[in-house]
Amino acid sequence: MSVAGDLGERKIIEIIIEKLEKMPGMILPFWDDASAVEIGGGNVAVIKTDMLVGKVDVPPGMTPWHAARKAVVMNVSDLVAKGAKPIALLASLGFPSDYKTTGIEQVGLGLNAGAREYGAYVIGGDTSEASDLIISCMMFGVCRKKELIFRSGAKPGDILAVTNWFGKTAAGLKIILEGLSVPEQLEKELTRSVFMPKARLKEGLSLANSRTASAAIDSSDGLALCLHELSKRSNVGFSLDVVPVAPEVKRFAKLFRLDSRELALYGGEEYELVVTIKPGKWRLAKQVVKNAGGNLIKIGYATEERRIVLKTRKGEIPIDALGWEHFKR
Amino acid sequence: MSVAGDLGERKIIEIIIEKLEKMPGMILPFWDDASAVEIGGGNVAVIKTDMLVGKVDVPPGMTPWHAARKAVVMNVSDLVAKGAKPIALLASLGFPSDYKTTGIEQVGLGLNAGAREYGAYVIGGDTSEASDLIISCMMFGVCRKKELIFRSGAKPGDILAVTNWFGKTAAGLKIILEGLSVPEQLEKELTRSVFMPKARLKEGLSLANSRTASAAIDSSDGLALCLHELSKRSNVGFSLDVVPVAPEVKRFAKLFRLDSRELALYGGEEYELVVTIKPGKWRLAKQVVKNAGGNLIKIGYATEERRIVLKTRKGEIPIDALGWEHFKR
Repeated sequence: MSVAGDLGERKIIEIIIEKLEKMPGMILPFWDDASAVEIGGGNVAVIKTDMLVGKVDVPPGMTPWHAARKAVVMNVSDLVAKGAKPIALLASLGFPSDYKTTGIEQVGLGLNAGAREYGAYVIGGDTSEASDLIISCMMFGVCRKKELIFRSGAKPGDILAVTNWFGKTAAGLKIILEGLSVPEQLEKELTRSVFMPKARLKEGLSLANSRTASAAIDSSDGLALCLHELSKRSNVGFSLDVVPVAPEVKRFAKLFRLDSRELALYGGEEYELVVTIKPGKWRLAKQVVKNAGGNLIKIGYATEERRIVLKTRKGEIPIDALGWEHFKR
Repeated sequence: MSVAGDLGERKIIEIIIEKLEKMPGMILPFWDDASAVEIGGGNVAVIKTDMLVGKVDVPPGMTPWHAARKAVVMNVSDLVAKGAKPIALLASLGFPSDYKTTGIEQVGLGLNAGAREYGAYVIGGDTSEASDLIISCMMFGVCRKKELIFRSGAKPGDILAVTNWFGKTAAGLKIILEGLSVPEQLEKELTRSVFMPKARLKEGLSLANSRTASAAIDSSDGLALCLHELSKRSNVGFSLDVVPVAPEVKRFAKLFRLDSRELALYGGEEYELVVTIKPGKWRLAKQVVKNAGGNLIKIGYATEERRIVLKTRKGEIPIDALGWEHFKR
């Protein structure tokens, strides 16, 4: 008889979804970054839950404050990918019975810090005894219905772009988990990405407000998996001119003879936006994101043919649907 | 150094809340059954998260289906106590890696059954590996702002009422956990209350729509604790003419020489509404709840003096603030 550990996260979600009656007129499909409900006045409520589990999601050296803040960022990022503004957070907290009071205080402070950083407030929650540290957040936000960004809107010819260079979290995790010795400044840069991830609130909202993005996804499952997901939902392919590797990751990869592109493509736990921009709107998109204090990096374009490839001087290299998944042994 | 197990659930929540910046104009205070956010058009979104943990909340004999359904009911009940209609559910699920696929299927079916039973749909969620079965639900609902029911609205002279007789869950849990031998029909009645709890949707909505209730609370922490909570928030006391003991609980208590009133007052895990009704609105309240297919049982009234007492022929008996709390060893 099969068990959760054999199935992997995606298969488990499939099994659950198969048992659910679908809400009539459901605005965002299952599998999207977040869910949406009509609330009148041309607005939708966008809601999301994402759970952080101590033994799975908290690497050594990450404090309860950082873990709680990260649990908030995970949820903010999903709302932002839809173009929704986070407003209120609920948190269900599970603590082992020997969890220290100082840790509980830090969790409270970290939740508050994460919410306030993105303009939201913690307004409720629940707590229970559990074997692991559990921080299950639920973020509530609002979006103009016509500004909601779907995963399914990319068209061939759209420009593929991202909000930052990738691979720092993968490199940072390698340093932490494998105890690699790295020059201090580089280590700081790379591990900061693990401990202090950022969600792209201003970037997401400015893309939504300007209606320049045809599709978007949050990159937390890894850049490669996100491209495959956008491809599947929009029925397009992607041709990449470049893998957006962070310069620090290139230096790190050189030190340990790793493939920097693999770190950027298959790492995960980076809360960037992967977006497609309507061709006529590229300059506007670039401008509004810049005005908001962010950056939009063009990495390729959407294609008719449903393949995901990187163009190099030696020809096309397929980008596989590999990434980080809970449960997978 | 103190740890979670020494603190108890209430103290942990206190510690967390102390660290949070309060949302300006927060509609429902921390500690209420649910939280609320303005969404325009005279409406508020009412949201709630409540987490079920396998090792804490699932007694022997309870299937994953029943556990998942119960996790939904817990959240529905909190919305209903505010007068809000449940619309959409998110579920964060944690499964141990050896959790069986059939169990996962049952969790999906149970979530769906619980949501549909109260007119809502499951529209999203998350899953992760965890040491315990974790079912953290978040319910989203909507309420007319002027119909929202607070814990703080009870006035001296208001009628105190409940939506059902109490004590079945406490008796049922005793049967299950202590392996008591009870006549079959009685056992069925009492354990059903544990495995198949009901939330009082129609009762809550009809009280909200008719604006007959001055205050309400969901009784899941136990009748006695709820009375103390209403008392604290409304700054009133309560004088009870009767403890609403279910007839099956009286029979059960007689068999084992237990105090049936204690089972009804201090049990918890019953998802009834404890409400106060404006004196001139009692007949209307009773009628609208009856029309909705429910029952409203008068058990006493609110008093100026902030004591909670049961009136008996031998005088007044104080009702203590005892109940069921997570973490308490």
